[in-house]
Amino acid sequence: MVFQIDINCDMGESFGEYSIGNDEEVIKHISSANVACGFHGGDPLVMRQTIRLAKSNNVAVGAHPGFPDLLGFGRRNMNLTREEARNYVTYQVGALRAFCEAEDVQLQHVKPHGALYNMAADNPDLARAIIESVKDFHPEPILMVLANSKMQKIAEEAGLKIAKEAFADRAYNTDGTLVSRKVPGAVISDVHQINDRVVKIVKESKTFSVDNKIVDLGKVETICVHGDNPEAAKIASSMGMALKTQGIIVRPIAEFV
Amino acid sequence: MVFQIDINCDMGESFGEYSIGNDEEVIKHISSANVACGFHGGDPLVMRQTIRLAKSNNVAVGAHPGFPDLLGFGRRNMNLTREEARNYVTYQVGALRAFCEAEDVQLQHVKPHGALYNMAADNPDLARAIIESVKDFHPEPILMVLANSKMQKIAEEAGLKIAKEAFADRAYNTDGTLVSRKVPGAVISDVHQINDRVVKIVKESKTFSVDNKIVDLGKVETICVHGDNPEAAKIASSMGMALKTQGIIVRPIAEFV
Amino acid sequence: MVFQIDINCDMGESFGEYSIGNDEEVIKHISSANVACGFHGGDPLVMRQTIRLAKSNNVAVGAHPGFPDLLGFGRRNMNLTREEARNYVTYQVGALRAFCEAEDVQLQHVKPHGALYNMAADNPDLARAIIESVKDFHPEPILMVLANSKMQKIAEEAGLKIAKEAFADRAYNTDGTLVSRKVPGAVISDVHQINDRVVKIVKESKTFSVDNKIVDLGKVETICVHGDNPEAAKIASSMGMALKTQGIIVRPIAEFV
Amino acid sequence: MVFQIDINCDMGESFGEYSIGNDEEVIKHISSANVACGFHGGDPLVMRQTIRLAKSNNVAVGAHPGFPDLLGFGRRNMNLTREEARNYVTYQVGALRAFCEAEDVQLQHVKPHGALYNMAADNPDLARAIIESVKDFHPEPILMVLANSKMQKIAEEAGLKIAKEAFADRAYNTDGTLVSRKVPGAVISDVHQINDRVVKIVKESKTFSVDNKIVDLGKVETICVHGDNPEAAKIASSMGMALKTQGIIVRPIAEFV
Repeated sequence: MVFQIDINCDMGESFGEYSIGNDEEVIKHISSANVACGFHGGDPLVMRQTIRLAKSNNVAVGAHPGFPDLLGFGRRNMNLTREEARNYVTYQVGALRAFCEAEDVQLQHVKPHGALYNMAADNPDLARAIIESVKDFHPEPILMVLANSKMQKIAEEAGLKIAKEAFADRAYNTDGTLVSRKVPGAVISDVHQINDRVVKIVKESKTFSVDNKIVDLGKVETICVHGDNPEAAKIASSMGMALKTQGIIVRPIAEFV
Repeated sequence: MVFQIDINCDMGESFGEYSIGNDEEVIKHISSANVACGFHGGDPLVMRQTIRLAKSNNVAVGAHPGFPDLLGFGRRNMNLTREEARNYVTYQVGALRAFCEAEDVQLQHVKPHGALYNMAADNPDLARAIIESVKDFHPEPILMVLANSKMQKIAEEAGLKIAKEAFADRAYNTDGTLVSRKVPGAVISDVHQINDRVVKIVKESKTFSVDNKIVDLGKVETICVHGDNPEAAKIASSMGMALKTQGIIVRPIAEFV
Repeated sequence: MVFQIDINCDMGESFGEYSIGNDEEVIKHISSANVACGFHGGDPLVMRQTIRLAKSNNVAVGAHPGFPDLLGFGRRNMNLTREEARNYVTYQVGALRAFCEAEDVQLQHVKPHGALYNMAADNPDLARAIIESVKDFHPEPILMVLANSKMQKIAEEAGLKIAKEAFADRAYNTDGTLVSRKVPGAVISDVHQINDRVVKIVKESKTFSVDNKIVDLGKVETICVHGDNPEAAKIASSMGMALKTQGIIVRPIAEFV
Repeated sequence: MVFQIDINCDMGESFGEYSIGNDEEVIKHISSANVACGFHGGDPLVMRQTIRLAKSNNVAVGAHPGFPDLLGFGRRNMNLTREEARNYVTYQVGALRAFCEAEDVQLQHVKPHGALYNMAADNPDLARAIIESVKDFHPEPILMVLANSKMQKIAEEAGLKIAKEAFADRAYNTDGTLVSRKVPGAVISDVHQINDRVVKIVKESKTFSVDNKIVDLGKVETICVHGDNPEAAKIASSMGMALKTQGIIVRPIAEFV
């Protein structure tokens, strides 16, 4: 049996004079880039540069829309109406897609950022807003959703092409939800442990919960590497080698979803 | 000989709780709407609503990108690099076009807003930035340029589809440039005078300068009505009747450029 | 027995070219102006103008800080840390106070805006953040709090000078909380009913709940008039006359708290 | 004869998740910190932290207001009216001063940032706007002005307390203006050369122009170290030692102006 997986990472979150992340290094070790769209991070110049960077590294490009909260980097919950959420996402994805076309790159996917991603995973109204926005585009990009979440179910019912995502460097609760970042131990930093987890997720669709129980995530198509981790490049590189050793092929989701 | 002309107006410049302009009335009397894109005015909800409004009134839709200066409504000169200007325009036009596609409307044109329009008319570098941005899109939208400006020449040389624009409610200098708004008499408010001027512009490609000389504008394809004028609907309506009386057909530029 | 009450209203929420509210009329009928500070509405020019307007109408000035969410007019819940909330409030109040000093006006009070006010009423952490911010200023301005709220209790325990606020045009639940604006009937628009309610609140510290029970609000020092109501000037004027008829004196809170 | 000089540096320009500069190191080697106020950089949390950092290092604090252009880091010329400029500055300085008071620190000075500084040096209207803003505060902070500029003259005529500033790491034209950063050689990076220049400026009020002529700067009270230079801490440290070797005392301007 052949296993294949996509590795995605947030990219292009710099803004004007402000630089964040280590995109040039990390991009060598991933297959899909989630490019910020100017609301929580990113700006028009950074967007175009990041798409060019992805293209020259044969990395697929996705839109990474967030809350309109640059000051909070899109990580603070905001209470939007469904209509607001839908239109904010369409605006951002549309802007990003224009740069894709200008650079002759296909828009592969949409992955909501930060608090928008986390809230939508569990909030059907917000999930539907994002789904409506994805349907605003033709052809529809693939939507990345948290594996095993309410949003996954809703997106499947809506007939969307989705990629189920799991985190190799985040602790899970027994019910398959992510342990809050505020809880100590929520983020796993040991590279060996991350590598063991990613292989288990890909091959068995399973991971260990914080209390050491088996959590069934269902089939997972993409693994997130956190670009804001200063060790991101090292983690992604090591993960790539671990996967290769196990005969697992790393490639953009559009090639196998 | 059949005369035809497009009448364009800025639209969709409301923002969140802030309402500006009288779009519902004005739109009945124009053929092309310049829809703000969120930088100097407009927001994602307003953008979609305005496109729907235009569609239901058979009015063509264009993108109306501006400087990133909501506080100054895009009317203050800003010193951008060519690369900044290009990418800011592509970002905004891309976002607007996404709503067009979602609402099954063709993006007809691009018209820069306020200080961006005024600076670009006379600044080759800025003009080229906007032209490069228009070329980022496929198919290329029509670019509205000030008739007789440097930008017109540069856009023609670049092989763009353009619509030359004139103002029936603005005074002209003898050299064909617009009299600065800071000068008394720069804005004409008398409806009869506006109507006489618009007919002369359409039929003879000419207007009178502030010092009462004849100014040759060259062929003009679109006339701007200022939506921020509280009388905008009345002026547009009266202009429409004056043009009809003269046998001049009002229609979107895409139909005859 | 002499009754006295303050009438407050949000003011100065215009932004750049965007005008909102009818400050010039409403200010004639109130005793305290809550001046927006540039985050949810207002801008530096509007802030100075509004302070001048208040001064020339003998109306006391307060700071009206909100969430950093111009697009949502500060009405959308945002999940801030206590430290973020405290510093955002200090920033805004500090900016407003500078204009007060420049115009030789005393900063009388602080009243949080919209979602910040509503969330803080019931969220001890957020309430404490605002209280810490008020304590950042010397002399401490008066803090307006929802009468009967958790925040009132916390502010009293912290030793702050407070003004307890009630709403004559909002329906109350039996427990003294406000009926959500999303519920039909939450906002009362009948002027006579509003006037009856305000007199009862001032004289008896009581109001009727939606299910017609008596709600004891405790002593109330200030009544809010909603400036975004198109009828705000009319309501405030009528309320003023009703209070006068009842021998109730309307004056800024600093004069009697 | 005793020589004394202030060394100032821009600080607190980080924003939300975005970190810029190396404030913790640089602050050890300067006497005055220009703290960003949230328009071109900085945010309320960063402002308070930076004031605390300055206080614990016995460094004086000034406000560093800029254009409302976070995307351009306040480095792009903007065309503001005098009223806009004045009020934007008062807003920012007021916000910063609130944090000063909260932390029991005196606001020593105001130094405009980036394009606002450069434009005001040569634009009497903009210079007057800033001067009016400084006069909005009581007691008036010291205004830092480019030595030998139009703004220096205007500020002196207006009776302001000023500190004349020179740059040890920037090339000068023969007329005493700074060489544009766009010209190669405009920024001097050699530490020895910088040290030689700073000593000459302090002791002789003179420097060499790009074409090797002597430029008389007049008496200079403060020298700017550029915090965005990655070598800022090294340069400031070396400069401090060079000054000490020459018997020049480094101290905040308020102590000797």
